[in-house]
Amino acid sequence: MPARTAEATWHGNLQEGSGSVKLGSGAYDGPFSFKSRFEDGTGTNPEELIGAAEAGCFTMALSARLSRSGFDVESVHTTAQVHLEKVGDNFSITRIHLINESNIMGIEDAAFQEHAAETKKSCIVSRALTGVEITLEAKLIS
Amino acid sequence: MPARTAEATWHGNLQEGSGSVKLGSGAYDGPFSFKSRFEDGTGTNPEELIGAAEAGCFTMALSARLSRSGFDVESVHTTAQVHLEKVGDNFSITRIHLINESNIMGIEDAAFQEHAAETKKSCIVSRALTGVEITLEAKLIS
Repeated sequence: MPARTAEATWHGNLQEGSGSVKLGSGAYDGPFSFKSRFEDGTGTNPEELIGAAEAGCFTMALSARLSRSGFDVESVHTTAQVHLEKVGDNFSITRIHLINESNIMGIEDAAFQEHAAETKKSCIVSRALTGVEITLEAKLIS
Repeated sequence: MPARTAEATWHGNLQEGSGSVKLGSGAYDGPFSFKSRFEDGTGTNPEELIGAAEAGCFTMALSARLSRSGFDVESVHTTAQVHLEKVGDNFSITRIHLINESNIMGIEDAAFQEHAAETKKSCIVSRALTGVEITLEAKLIS
């Protein structure tokens, strides 16, 4: 399996400099800056990219797990909130909170909660992000 | 500081189902699928999003560190290669390899290598991805 790639470029210092980030698939190629990361400028930032990776991985893995267990997956939707906070002198990603709403045929809530909690622990991106606390709020919807 | 957000949705089972992923900034909103993750379909995948976060964070942090140390940062460019491999029964991100080329005025290679190695350890996204080995190949260019 080929490695997945992405690139980033930066020109200049932190505050006035600027950069760009590009996904290997070509799906995204655009700017990022100090403002888009630490303030409110336009463009992406590493934290929302981490959030998208975790939300994407969790959502795909939960769907796979539920359909393997014999349930019909109508839809699984997850929002990741990535908390970047100053702790001491440094900024750190202190927590990723996942808010999930799933429409699954014929599953009891207790079984669903168990599958969701297990997916949070075992999915590929969660196992990479071991430096961050990941919390989960999962709900069955119809 | 507000949390950064991203969302993902999936419909159906793993192999034939399909999903979408959306960045909170609006910078990207598009499809992902089993094929775009584990084979060669179009669309993004969680691994290249992780690569973009790490490349973006490392590149911004190295530029900031060098300019704080008094060097003029002409350009810093980093490619992240994210290795997703089957280990036993599970897929895991086994390694992220960073390939960096930097154009910096008046710095000696030894000092540059030290700043690059320190940034690899200390940048925000590296400190989140503690479940993955990160390797680095950094080069001064002119």
